[in-house]
Amino acid sequence: MGRERGRGAPAAHVVCSGDELALGRIANTNAAWLSRRLSDLGFDVRRHVVVPDHLEPLAAEIRAAARAARLVILSGGLGPTVDDLTREAAARAAGRRLVRSAAALAAIRRFFARRGRPMPENNARQADLPAGAVLLRNPVGTAPGFALAVGRAFVAALPGVPAELRPMFDSRVVPLLRRRFPRRPAVAATELDTIGLPESEVDRRLAGIASPDGNPRLSLMVRDAIVTARFFARGRTGAEARRVLRSALGPARRVLGAHVFGHDGMDVSDAVAALLLERRLTLSVAESCTGGLIGHLLTRVPGISAALVEDVVTYANEAKVKRLGVSAALIRRRGAVSAEVAAAMAEGSQRASGADASLAVTGIAGPGGGTAAKPVGLVYVAARFRGATTVREFRLPGDRAMVQARAARLALDHLRRRIMGG
Amino acid sequence: MGRERGRGAPAAHVVCSGDELALGRIANTNAAWLSRRLSDLGFDVRRHVVVPDHLEPLAAEIRAAARAARLVILSGGLGPTVDDLTREAAARAAGRRLVRSAAALAAIRRFFARRGRPMPENNARQADLPAGAVLLRNPVGTAPGFALAVGRAFVAALPGVPAELRPMFDSRVVPLLRRRFPRRPAVAATELDTIGLPESEVDRRLAGIASPDGNPRLSLMVRDAIVTARFFARGRTGAEARRVLRSALGPARRVLGAHVFGHDGMDVSDAVAALLLERRLTLSVAESCTGGLIGHLLTRVPGISAALVEDVVTYANEAKVKRLGVSAALIRRRGAVSAEVAAAMAEGSQRASGADASLAVTGIAGPGGGTAAKPVGLVYVAARFRGATTVREFRLPGDRAMVQARAARLALDHLRRRIMGG
Repeated sequence: MGRERGRGAPAAHVVCSGDELALGRIANTNAAWLSRRLSDLGFDVRRHVVVPDHLEPLAAEIRAAARAARLVILSGGLGPTVDDLTREAAARAAGRRLVRSAAALAAIRRFFARRGRPMPENNARQADLPAGAVLLRNPVGTAPGFALAVGRAFVAALPGVPAELRPMFDSRVVPLLRRRFPRRPAVAATELDTIGLPESEVDRRLAGIASPDGNPRLSLMVRDAIVTARFFARGRTGAEARRVLRSALGPARRVLGAHVFGHDGMDVSDAVAALLLERRLTLSVAESCTGGLIGHLLTRVPGISAALVEDVVTYANEAKVKRLGVSAALIRRRGAVSAEVAAAMAEGSQRASGADASLAVTGIAGPGGGTAAKPVGLVYVAARFRGATTVREFRLPGDRAMVQARAARLALDHLRRRIMGG
Repeated sequence: MGRERGRGAPAAHVVCSGDELALGRIANTNAAWLSRRLSDLGFDVRRHVVVPDHLEPLAAEIRAAARAARLVILSGGLGPTVDDLTREAAARAAGRRLVRSAAALAAIRRFFARRGRPMPENNARQADLPAGAVLLRNPVGTAPGFALAVGRAFVAALPGVPAELRPMFDSRVVPLLRRRFPRRPAVAATELDTIGLPESEVDRRLAGIASPDGNPRLSLMVRDAIVTARFFARGRTGAEARRVLRSALGPARRVLGAHVFGHDGMDVSDAVAALLLERRLTLSVAESCTGGLIGHLLTRVPGISAALVEDVVTYANEAKVKRLGVSAALIRRRGAVSAEVAAAMAEGSQRASGADASLAVTGIAGPGGGTAAKPVGLVYVAARFRGATTVREFRLPGDRAMVQARAARLALDHLRRRIMGG
């Protein structure tokens, strides 16, 4: 950020309010998401602040942020209850009154009307905005956002629910920022999402291509067996920034090869879904230790119904036998967590579904169920495609949730490589 | 928390430094974890701050926090690199020099010796602590922490790696806090997790029982379709705090009734899993629009294999027919998203699995697939238990992810109420 700052990137602060944040019930994913977006837009994110739901402290934070930064994004506190105080705190910080916005009220009434429900009276409070604020419509929920000037700063307030904050920032705030901040430094950023290599190996392979304090700037992020390499380029013009970025991406893709499954924070499930839809392939899944996570990840993708025939979570051995035709003798002989049973699950799944491809997972997620021979974290994934079944074994670290999360991604990646012919 | 202030709960700030936090590469889980611990210890967590790795801004934040709060916890910036600035920033804030701690240096050398590696020279920087600081040994990594007075505040600095920060806080910082803050107020907190009422209605029902600035203090948190009411009580003694808490919980449970499914941040899936295991009931699930999410939620629970027989995600209509015996004519006549098909899915699932209970969901998660008669967000859930099948219809707001998340919780809640006989 030192460099970006040198280039005159406007300073931005993120102020999030909510007892659930201040008390640590939830981690501040909004600040993280907003910071990535703001940085990609050429802002210099200098500070996140979290405060509980109290009027004066929140108003004081907004004032302080508006003195220190040219852009302040607020999240949370726009709900209908008495501890939703962002509207009033922002009004105090700006020295404005609250006035009920007819447009905001109409939007809230429409929200309830669409659901055939009367609007509870206290939801009307959500339409009280600081005088002179610009209404930011909420396409998803009831809480309208707003933007207003506080001193020399531009302040935008968004709801705390990520599924509402994200589309509102992209559709309502970004256009305003482009107009209000025409002279941001030219930047260009891309992320390459990889799976199958440890972070240290990704780092080693990219060493000659980009570095943490070069241009482009390299940073690595790790989640659920996925290593994402972020390239952040700066230039005098957008064209120059994009040229700097391209000059690194080509070599990076070459050294990372088939381990790259996507870009800009995709999940392996997104890549597999896109691959299936693009090639018009159908898939059936058989899960054991991942318990439905693979189906859940794939069905986050709109339109996946064209590809996903079924996902059978055969948690009990009888279900493996009855639903997938796995031989009970095989389970007795090899154990439910074995390469042979994984293969039989994939084959049984494809036989029953008639899908073009099938994917199966069996393993020990823990904390119980491990043995010396078959420890917690032992996972077998099997993919069947074009008449051939391939099985991979993994020994995954971490607790039950981590083993399930990684097993699901590594299983999807195994299928991805089979379909790509890798 | 306003009143806690009045009652003399010492104010605490959490200041976290690191570009990876400020740029949004990672969410601030340290602040969340520390805040839960601090709140349970009777501190009033008034603020989290995140700043990037820059010396003066970090020193300024430490000074500001030390003026505003009696306790300041710092995390991050204790590594061996030039970006690790917390030692120097804290020294500046306290008006001290950095002095190399022989004890800290010895501990770092031992860390490398145990691994049979020589200590790289730059690791010696990690032993430079503000003059007069108390060393906080790191049982896990190389980065020692430290504690020192900055003005009237007690400041403790811990590494940013959660696996190092957490044991160091519990083993090194908590004993210091018990000595430095002997007169923390006695506190007691409980959360009631509810589903089936909107936040505004939970708020209305609890109005006479607890309030955002009363004792106990009420705060509401919403996630998916779950509304959690947190009651935070204070007293002169632990017994008094617990008495204050009990005096509110009874009435609260009465006005919220069967909508309360759990406490202290449980998910509905946790409650259903506990209910099944406790009553030795087996369950089979049939999912369509939730795509495996119900299975995923249930299988996060260790030991659930004793209850969950199978979960069949019948995404395609043929799968509903083949796997669940739903009549193709019924699907043609009523549509796959209908009360009749939801019931047939639940009945087919139980027939095939022989489980004591079954749960089925069918709906339109969107963004596509909606019609005037059957809009996006229309969801039917069916539960079969003790020979009876009951179906509920929901019209859920939000995007695909929100519809799926809420549909899964509402389906599990429908089953919960059936089993509870509600």
